[in-house]
Amino acid sequence: MGSDSDAKVMGDACAALDEFGIRYEMVVASAHRSPERAKEMVTNAERDGAAVFIAGAGMAAHLPGVVASFTTKPVIGVPLAAGALQGLDALYAVVQMPPGIPVATVAIGGARNAGILAAQIIATSDASIAAKLRESREQMAAGVVEKSKKVERSTR
Amino acid sequence: MGSDSDAKVMGDACAALDEFGIRYEMVVASAHRSPERAKEMVTNAERDGAAVFIAGAGMAAHLPGVVASFTTKPVIGVPLAAGALQGLDALYAVVQMPPGIPVATVAIGGARNAGILAAQIIATSDASIAAKLRESREQMAAGVVEKSKKVERSTR
Amino acid sequence: MGSDSDAKVMGDACAALDEFGIRYEMVVASAHRSPERAKEMVTNAERDGAAVFIAGAGMAAHLPGVVASFTTKPVIGVPLAAGALQGLDALYAVVQMPPGIPVATVAIGGARNAGILAAQIIATSDASIAAKLRESREQMAAGVVEKSKKVERSTR
Amino acid sequence: MGSDSDAKVMGDACAALDEFGIRYEMVVASAHRSPERAKEMVTNAERDGAAVFIAGAGMAAHLPGVVASFTTKPVIGVPLAAGALQGLDALYAVVQMPPGIPVATVAIGGARNAGILAAQIIATSDASIAAKLRESREQMAAGVVEKSKKVERSTR
Amino acid sequence: MGSDSDAKVMGDACAALDEFGIRYEMVVASAHRSPERAKEMVTNAERDGAAVFIAGAGMAAHLPGVVASFTTKPVIGVPLAAGALQGLDALYAVVQMPPGIPVATVAIGGARNAGILAAQIIATSDASIAAKLRESREQMAAGVVEKSKKVERSTR
Amino acid sequence: MGSDSDAKVMGDACAALDEFGIRYEMVVASAHRSPERAKEMVTNAERDGAAVFIAGAGMAAHLPGVVASFTTKPVIGVPLAAGALQGLDALYAVVQMPPGIPVATVAIGGARNAGILAAQIIATSDASIAAKLRESREQMAAGVVEKSKKVERSTR
Amino acid sequence: MGSDSDAKVMGDACAALDEFGIRYEMVVASAHRSPERAKEMVTNAERDGAAVFIAGAGMAAHLPGVVASFTTKPVIGVPLAAGALQGLDALYAVVQMPPGIPVATVAIGGARNAGILAAQIIATSDASIAAKLRESREQMAAGVVEKSKKVERSTR
Amino acid sequence: MGSDSDAKVMGDACAALDEFGIRYEMVVASAHRSPERAKEMVTNAERDGAAVFIAGAGMAAHLPGVVASFTTKPVIGVPLAAGALQGLDALYAVVQMPPGIPVATVAIGGARNAGILAAQIIATSDASIAAKLRESREQMAAGVVEKSKKVERSTR
Repeated sequence: MGSDSDAKVMGDACAALDEFGIRYEMVVASAHRSPERAKEMVTNAERDGAAVFIAGAGMAAHLPGVVASFTTKPVIGVPLAAGALQGLDALYAVVQMPPGIPVATVAIGGARNAGILAAQIIATSDASIAAKLRESREQMAAGVVEKSKKVERSTR
Repeated sequence: MGSDSDAKVMGDACAALDEFGIRYEMVVASAHRSPERAKEMVTNAERDGAAVFIAGAGMAAHLPGVVASFTTKPVIGVPLAAGALQGLDALYAVVQMPPGIPVATVAIGGARNAGILAAQIIATSDASIAAKLRESREQMAAGVVEKSKKVERSTR
Repeated sequence: MGSDSDAKVMGDACAALDEFGIRYEMVVASAHRSPERAKEMVTNAERDGAAVFIAGAGMAAHLPGVVASFTTKPVIGVPLAAGALQGLDALYAVVQMPPGIPVATVAIGGARNAGILAAQIIATSDASIAAKLRESREQMAAGVVEKSKKVERSTR
Repeated sequence: MGSDSDAKVMGDACAALDEFGIRYEMVVASAHRSPERAKEMVTNAERDGAAVFIAGAGMAAHLPGVVASFTTKPVIGVPLAAGALQGLDALYAVVQMPPGIPVATVAIGGARNAGILAAQIIATSDASIAAKLRESREQMAAGVVEKSKKVERSTR
Repeated sequence: MGSDSDAKVMGDACAALDEFGIRYEMVVASAHRSPERAKEMVTNAERDGAAVFIAGAGMAAHLPGVVASFTTKPVIGVPLAAGALQGLDALYAVVQMPPGIPVATVAIGGARNAGILAAQIIATSDASIAAKLRESREQMAAGVVEKSKKVERSTR
Repeated sequence: MGSDSDAKVMGDACAALDEFGIRYEMVVASAHRSPERAKEMVTNAERDGAAVFIAGAGMAAHLPGVVASFTTKPVIGVPLAAGALQGLDALYAVVQMPPGIPVATVAIGGARNAGILAAQIIATSDASIAAKLRESREQMAAGVVEKSKKVERSTR
Repeated sequence: MGSDSDAKVMGDACAALDEFGIRYEMVVASAHRSPERAKEMVTNAERDGAAVFIAGAGMAAHLPGVVASFTTKPVIGVPLAAGALQGLDALYAVVQMPPGIPVATVAIGGARNAGILAAQIIATSDASIAAKLRESREQMAAGVVEKSKKVERSTR
Repeated sequence: MGSDSDAKVMGDACAALDEFGIRYEMVVASAHRSPERAKEMVTNAERDGAAVFIAGAGMAAHLPGVVASFTTKPVIGVPLAAGALQGLDALYAVVQMPPGIPVATVAIGGARNAGILAAQIIATSDASIAAKLRESREQMAAGVVEKSKKVERSTR
């Protein structure tokens, strides 16, 4: 992520990865203030076997695209709400990548979904994580029933 | 994809998949006009070993999210420009997914990047496609040099 | 509605239905987290004689369109303000339905109007509710006069 | 509708009503240039048994709301794309109605869906139209299969 | 104005009119909830010699346009920030009037400027108010100098 | 107006003024390229008895505000569609004036309404123009009836 | 800057200039309320050797463009968030300058970057400030490492 | 610039630099497809004495920010209109830079102003270019008078 102030939101991605038992490393590396560090970290991580990158940034959010320029691994981008435009600038700066260098973009502030998407990607070749994803999905469906009970009303 | 009129743009994804030697099936299945068919196709494709889904749709583009609701495989969403809002409606309807069900969104009309992203996902467990991706990236960088030569100007 | 957190706003629709003596059932059913449940509930409700559906959801708000894909009864959609885009994403995702499957969309957060619109639809074949609607309209007009008195100023 | 230049788009609503055998009258009545006429037409139409109103207008599209202020019948609003803002102004001016006076809004330029929604409303008390709606929906689903065949590709 | 909740902002217009010694009447009259009242008030006011109308409303803000449809006097529209779209809907619904029926639109929430603009219009045939406007403008310029002194910094 | 390329649209204002027999002068004066000229022209015109100013400009459209800073006469602003943002930039730059210096803004490209509004302002002290405005309004209402006849359809 | 209420944000520019040892003068001068003063200040400052101008304003933010119309020195514009549109109006009004009169625009509220940009401009002919800029950049990169340490997580 | 397809618009910057006799080099270097080349070119150009950088790019336009991350020289960013969002994405991605790394942003497609701004920056230490800028400004003002003559109308 581009700044330590993003850690609170991006922690949701870590939480999701923890649920699926996926190992990760979370660091700050600015696309603009420390481009060398960003490049080095991506290159080292890929060399050390990283399967997927998640990059979150706000405003003119270049980090996901910059990460994607240094690797051919899937890069998930999380636009973060910051400043006057409330994340709309970040959304456009992350999702509107030119042909050739995709960034898999999730919702503004959608770090949890970034973690789940990373799990889905890894699960394409890991049956155990795939099973956990199916289980988690069933729990979600069950959760909807529970939540519904709390607020249901009927006058029939 | 949601309509046969989307075939021209979505064909870019096929072209990218062809470049990387990835097998695919392209069909029309509307989230709204044929929800049963959409569900059946996703379920059957997953059963038959599909690793990744790419869904493209315009306007209130629900197809990527609906596909994602029927599978835990990665789903790539392509917002398509159609109607008065020129794809902005589709972008919001595809990328702003609620927590739990991610859609990996690419640029409006970014079908080629959807194909490349699918290749990147499959390459996390396929060294041969990973090698092709790296090679393709190098060609892209070389292509920039070629393109530059066509328009370079210098008055130094 | 798509989440129990929507119950507070969507309760305005129930209040309106109560005023006109219209029976209803309010439940949570996510288009994405529990698509089967959503389908089943719509199908069962239609079988049990439901005349109108009201669906409220936020962000990439697919629920109204998904409900509409399972029934030919009128479906009223309520875009809800949630997340960074403050309901603009939900508005586009609800109102911009493709030809063939309409969703009768009301204002962002306009659950009360959804209830009134449902009453208007039912009143097309129920003279007693039609009379109540006319009476309610007259009270609204009278209410404007009352409200005006509280703030009127004149220097003539 | 507010202007004769809207007739081409709004004709889609007539076509849909024709398909379902619903009788209608299409006229021009500007909310701003002829407010008396608009009021008179709504009042007369309601007296003559009109069940539903469809109003289409562009720019600061007040006609649907003005029609709704003169009747308690359901009013369907069609925002039309005109001028520099391409229908976004019309969408906001039609859908964002204040509490008390709903307008059932469809997509920008969505006149066909306005006609179908009118049919759905009338069908709540007309079994024959309800049957036609179900039949039409089945044909739509079948049409998707046909359209798919035209563009399907498979490399499996 | 369309609602008593608008009185606080619209009071700024009264304050401006008071400064220039212009007589006025402030009332609530909803374009939608009490269209008859709105028409009657505009017609009566014009008959009683009103020179200018100021209309403020939020959301799908039809009141200024509706007032303009009942008079050929200048109508000043004040879009008010209310609801999820923060006044952008009101701005479009007020300013984007079709050819033939202008509304002189000021900034979102710009009630003070509406009062000043009304004074400018009346001053086109009232030398005393014209003089007050020039004097007020000079005071404003002087006020800028005063304000500047409070925050000036110099390191020259 | 700010550029000779604006003459075609701004000519609509002249046409409206011609209809009401109002004398005018149309010139180009850029707020940015010739600020001295703009100031001089406004000052001279006011000295020579100008009652109302109409200023049209595109992009970061400062001309209306700059004109308003040099006079206390009513200034009507016409945002013009030019460049990538299609007039949205001009709309914001014209209408969102700070407290103290109003600009009476009309629709994007709404030069005809600017002319009519100028006529309405002048008519507050000119009974003959007021009569022409009422007559023109009646013709507009009659025109709606004519236009309606061209496109009316009925299946009743 | 256009108002004393802007002093808090614009102070960030002063702070940046202080860091690089650049002398400056900060004053309030409204483009609309005191156009003469604005012109005079720009002219005097240029005569007294000012190398760069920084102008910040909100809403229909004309000040940067107006300053640019009075000088051929570089003008840096800071759009400020104020009012209902949260700075989007100011951004468009500052950045969308017509050909011939550029304004070097920074982010909404980006006064600190305005100060740094001014330093970069002055550093094109001042080796000592250029050295300070390089040093500051290195400190920023080091700061990223420090910030990262505070929030790093690893499960490898 | 990021692509050879940008050469036509970016050529306006060259034309402006030619007018002021400023030497330049125009090349293509993609932030994403050839990040190494982009870095190298910036570093080499700075070493060879480049005073200012101009970077133009469309969509998620990262090039200006990436250039700025490799130099402390002033960087001028030109957002280019491309794809469905017509340059709005590029504007946000260029102008909304985080604190520390400014990009001097001009209008969407505003390459000519980028060239003039570069001249203004260089002119802070080059009296001959400063003189040319003042002369050019006077010609612009004279040009307004010429353009005005072509379209002036008067009925006084």
